[in-house]
Amino acid sequence: MSLKFDLIKVDGNARRGCVHTAHGCFQTPAFMAVGTAATVKALTMDQVAATGTQVILGNTYHLMMRPGGDLVEKMGGLHKFSGWTGPILTDSGGFQVMSLSNLVKMKEEGVEFTSHIDGGIKHFMRPEDSVHIQHQLDSNITMVLDECLHLPTTRVRAEKNVDMVTRWARRSKDAFVDRDGYGIFGIVQGADFPDLREKSARALTEIGFDGYAIGGLAVGEPQEVMFNMIGVVAPMLPNDKPRYLMGVGTPLDILGAVERGVDMFDCVMPTRAGRTAQAFTRHGTMNMRNAKFKDDPTPLDDKCGCPACKLSRAYLHHLIKCNEVLGATLLTQHNLWFYQDLMREIRESIEQGKFQEFKTEFIKNYTGEK
Amino acid sequence: MSLKFDLIKVDGNARRGCVHTAHGCFQTPAFMAVGTAATVKALTMDQVAATGTQVILGNTYHLMMRPGGDLVEKMGGLHKFSGWTGPILTDSGGFQVMSLSNLVKMKEEGVEFTSHIDGGIKHFMRPEDSVHIQHQLDSNITMVLDECLHLPTTRVRAEKNVDMVTRWARRSKDAFVDRDGYGIFGIVQGADFPDLREKSARALTEIGFDGYAIGGLAVGEPQEVMFNMIGVVAPMLPNDKPRYLMGVGTPLDILGAVERGVDMFDCVMPTRAGRTAQAFTRHGTMNMRNAKFKDDPTPLDDKCGCPACKLSRAYLHHLIKCNEVLGATLLTQHNLWFYQDLMREIRESIEQGKFQEFKTEFIKNYTGEK
Repeated sequence: MSLKFDLIKVDGNARRGCVHTAHGCFQTPAFMAVGTAATVKALTMDQVAATGTQVILGNTYHLMMRPGGDLVEKMGGLHKFSGWTGPILTDSGGFQVMSLSNLVKMKEEGVEFTSHIDGGIKHFMRPEDSVHIQHQLDSNITMVLDECLHLPTTRVRAEKNVDMVTRWARRSKDAFVDRDGYGIFGIVQGADFPDLREKSARALTEIGFDGYAIGGLAVGEPQEVMFNMIGVVAPMLPNDKPRYLMGVGTPLDILGAVERGVDMFDCVMPTRAGRTAQAFTRHGTMNMRNAKFKDDPTPLDDKCGCPACKLSRAYLHHLIKCNEVLGATLLTQHNLWFYQDLMREIRESIEQGKFQEFKTEFIKNYTGEK
Repeated sequence: MSLKFDLIKVDGNARRGCVHTAHGCFQTPAFMAVGTAATVKALTMDQVAATGTQVILGNTYHLMMRPGGDLVEKMGGLHKFSGWTGPILTDSGGFQVMSLSNLVKMKEEGVEFTSHIDGGIKHFMRPEDSVHIQHQLDSNITMVLDECLHLPTTRVRAEKNVDMVTRWARRSKDAFVDRDGYGIFGIVQGADFPDLREKSARALTEIGFDGYAIGGLAVGEPQEVMFNMIGVVAPMLPNDKPRYLMGVGTPLDILGAVERGVDMFDCVMPTRAGRTAQAFTRHGTMNMRNAKFKDDPTPLDDKCGCPACKLSRAYLHHLIKCNEVLGATLLTQHNLWFYQDLMREIRESIEQGKFQEFKTEFIKNYTGEK
């Protein structure tokens, strides 16, 4: 394992760092744009880079289905295939296997499933298979295969889950091919049971990974529960490794998680919202389909430097009413820009030892009157 | 009327010129990207400009329906509204009224129609209304309202058409508000009857316009008929005004029309093809949905400098199979890039007095073995 992480500055529990990969480094706290099928939906990779995005996430499940790990490998890996030259993290595929496919059967050996995408062929994915596919994709950060429980769940179920995913994590690490600038992350599970979270974190740090994810959160539980679990897990993780909260979240989720020591995030929220007419601004979200924007000559957010904010709300409203692709493109780029501006401001505030002030001010604007 | 046209060089009947507008000039022969509803579908205006496009076309029919001429005027015109800072030509709306709307009734005063877009309200558009809306849009080049006949048609119908659109052209010119850097074009009709084409051209040049369009072609007739009609009309038009062949066409159509003295073109072909997986290359078109591209690591066209051609055919095929928006964006931009490369090469060949050689060589590559 050889993914270098510099911890540059700490402010309370908030951390300012940098992860070095074979495809360059990314600054933390970092928000990873979700590039499901080797594309961040509705954007070119140049448009993604312009938002300040430094690292993207690829979905192994989608990529193994189409175009397949063999094909991506043959094309020189995901960077070359997609044109994204910076760092890439891939998930294990497990989350989508369990949420998107059919006839899912969990076994000790791995997970069996079928998918409508390839006409219902039966697949079997072992932890070793997931690591292998991520290797084919040339992912800089490989995630171990795990099983993500939905909340609420039972203690019995959660305990059984922690034990199995720990065994899977070890098998994943054993299967991982060590290379300079590439690493593998373990994923802490344990549902909303603090002692199981602790057990999982302890077991994973004993195995030893390049970074640690906190999984199985943002799956329907209240924000308070999520923050509590982060508060339990983060202090147990080694200081010199990055921490990644999977699938999170809203700007306020991110602020609360950074406050508790999380370094990395990914979420479909800014990109999916951009395709459904939702715009993020520092004063909250706006639905650009709303008729009140029909003749509004002002930009989405006059503090934003993105291309959409050089145009009027009226124009964006018009594009959305006409179902023009450009509406999705401009709003997606704006939303990612907004998220990356937020991350940059978070990083600067930690450097200056002013994270709490920044957080308070941001929340006041974001939740205040519009 | 005050749209300046410089005729820089003539090679046979092919012309190399430059049209000066209040929003900059564009070089001719020029291909105008079609920006129907204040957007060139699937592209940002920066992506359009990167293709070498110097002038775009707006569809008055679509814009009067959504968001409406009043709204665009209130937002400062189409340039400011859409973010396209270069020259804009708008059509009169007549072609779409007749092809896209319902219950169309042609009258001497104007055209009556309903549209599904606004729930079937009855509209009435006179030539003066079309000119007024184009004024609201702040279009640099206004087109007169005309009636475009489908071919084949009868002589009686065509003669009646020429007489009426001539009267409409005069009314349009009278309604046009003269401004520096803005102009109005007449449209020659006459179906495929040479003497009616001559009659129309003569009548319009007597009225006097900033430029002359040849309308009612590329509506189903053989290419030979189209070229014959251009051959009849072009010599009758004043040398010192630009000539515009509406709605044309394929690369070979454009070459044949330039050869006969046409300066301006517009067509949905490159952009629409880009949204239906068709790619233009100097060796002909390719359907990127075709499975043979699945593992093709080469670019669409290794001579092309567009962003899509920095990626592989395999990647483009993958995007299209997954219905990713980026597939449409990359192919649309590539196709426009291809068209603009063609226009640039046409202009250079005329400057060098080598248009015929260029045309012969281009056709050989384009229609030869792939």
